[in-house]
Amino acid sequence: MSSTPKRTESSFRRIAVIGLGAMGGSFARAATAATSAEVVGWSPDPDERLSAVEAEAVAAAPERWSEAVAGADLVMLAIPLGPTCKMMAELASTLEPAAVVADVASLKGPVAEAAAEAGLTRRWVGCHPMAGVAESGFAASSPTLYDGATVWITNDPEAEDAADRMRTLWTRFGATPQQADPHEHDRMIAFVSALPQLTANALATTLAEAGIGPEQLGSGGSDMTRLATSSPDIWIDILSALPEDLVVGLRLLGKTVNDLARAVEGGDMQEVREAMVRSATWKAGS
Amino acid sequence: MSSTPKRTESSFRRIAVIGLGAMGGSFARAATAATSAEVVGWSPDPDERLSAVEAEAVAAAPERWSEAVAGADLVMLAIPLGPTCKMMAELASTLEPAAVVADVASLKGPVAEAAAEAGLTRRWVGCHPMAGVAESGFAASSPTLYDGATVWITNDPEAEDAADRMRTLWTRFGATPQQADPHEHDRMIAFVSALPQLTANALATTLAEAGIGPEQLGSGGSDMTRLATSSPDIWIDILSALPEDLVVGLRLLGKTVNDLARAVEGGDMQEVREAMVRSATWKAGS
Repeated sequence: MSSTPKRTESSFRRIAVIGLGAMGGSFARAATAATSAEVVGWSPDPDERLSAVEAEAVAAAPERWSEAVAGADLVMLAIPLGPTCKMMAELASTLEPAAVVADVASLKGPVAEAAAEAGLTRRWVGCHPMAGVAESGFAASSPTLYDGATVWITNDPEAEDAADRMRTLWTRFGATPQQADPHEHDRMIAFVSALPQLTANALATTLAEAGIGPEQLGSGGSDMTRLATSSPDIWIDILSALPEDLVVGLRLLGKTVNDLARAVEGGDMQEVREAMVRSATWKAGS
Repeated sequence: MSSTPKRTESSFRRIAVIGLGAMGGSFARAATAATSAEVVGWSPDPDERLSAVEAEAVAAAPERWSEAVAGADLVMLAIPLGPTCKMMAELASTLEPAAVVADVASLKGPVAEAAAEAGLTRRWVGCHPMAGVAESGFAASSPTLYDGATVWITNDPEAEDAADRMRTLWTRFGATPQQADPHEHDRMIAFVSALPQLTANALATTLAEAGIGPEQLGSGGSDMTRLATSSPDIWIDILSALPEDLVVGLRLLGKTVNDLARAVEGGDMQEVREAMVRSATWKAGS
């Protein structure tokens, strides 16, 4: 898990990482450690640019993003979903003719649309590494963040060559690329990420309304509300762009909770037991 | 957290621990390590009795529980809630005249009633250590399980001397005793333990119905469904005896989830943001 990948020849000569937070900073560190490419970075925050250069995560971090992108044959966008989509149009006129554009945003449907609108479909490879850290910013980055992680890859058939190069790069970082249709991917994220997130928020809200303090929780209750501190800014960005599957998931969850309430109220412990056994069987993966 | 308490004089000379699973085994180990009392134990499982003796958690583990209880000035019941209540009546006719009876069941109201019915109110000290391990059985026990844990203590004013001796004992184990009314305690447990438990079951059931596998979850979703594997047997015992506060909590949670569904469906991201901010503020304890 923590071994640093060996430095090998990369099919990219110059990699520009736009955004030097935990995700982008980790990508830059991994690319510097695992490839022979020149890695440059950009962040809107001057301190973050300085930190990335001092940590030797990047060879340079110019003040303007266009300077980082100039000459790059891979531009990796490691910024939130909204800015990622917005930047596609700006990049189209700035990119080197043969450059690949990739991103690590949590949803792929909206980025695929933005890439298409910008005429970048053949050059865009959507990536979603299932890795993260609780803290944010370059200080939370690590060269091994992606080691052992699944990375969802989504691309048009016309971008297959570019996708192949990206899969090779992620593999060098110790990650496991997996292909996904952008809309199937986003439906899955609605269930595996957004629904657990809002469940934690709903449980925390309920406990707050009942007058329970977080310090009263045991380890189970603490785990169940840990996500309550996730950034509303990042999540609203994602929730706004999620397909209606999240609503389907929330309604299904609401119904399940209300069914349990009815069973407990009516003393129907057989129904509660069956629900517990069903969920234990699922979690055990059998 | 992991320092073994010093062996000091105990106000108890012979401690009988009924039940040698993770909770009872840990209590026996801690009592043997931290006091000069003779600690004996009993389990319905012959292997568990043998293991406890071999591990020197107890000085002896006779075949019949009445032999363990004979001569004991503290009988600690470390068995599930139902059996704990049932055993009160049987103990009443077996106990030494001055013996203290304690238990570590997760609810205190039903045990208080059972103690009263058995005429043991003056000698009963209800204890609920907020400590646990994922595994069960003696093999999962540890002399330091209670080190650092809060232990809820509930007793009748007439049992104040006995409660004082129990508080001293828990303190020697590194635990922090806190006084609670049995019914207030059980109401709190409905919210801090049972509600997070059933929330995990409901989320797991929802994901299962949506065709999502547990291996698709990231770290957040994994944490949010970890409790789905909790033992239905132990929980049904507790849920059956919980006050109606659990139903109140489940209904409140169901409403919160449905409100979020409506807000997401209607694109009312301001409402979703407010819910997220409210829960983050609560979790941060401010």
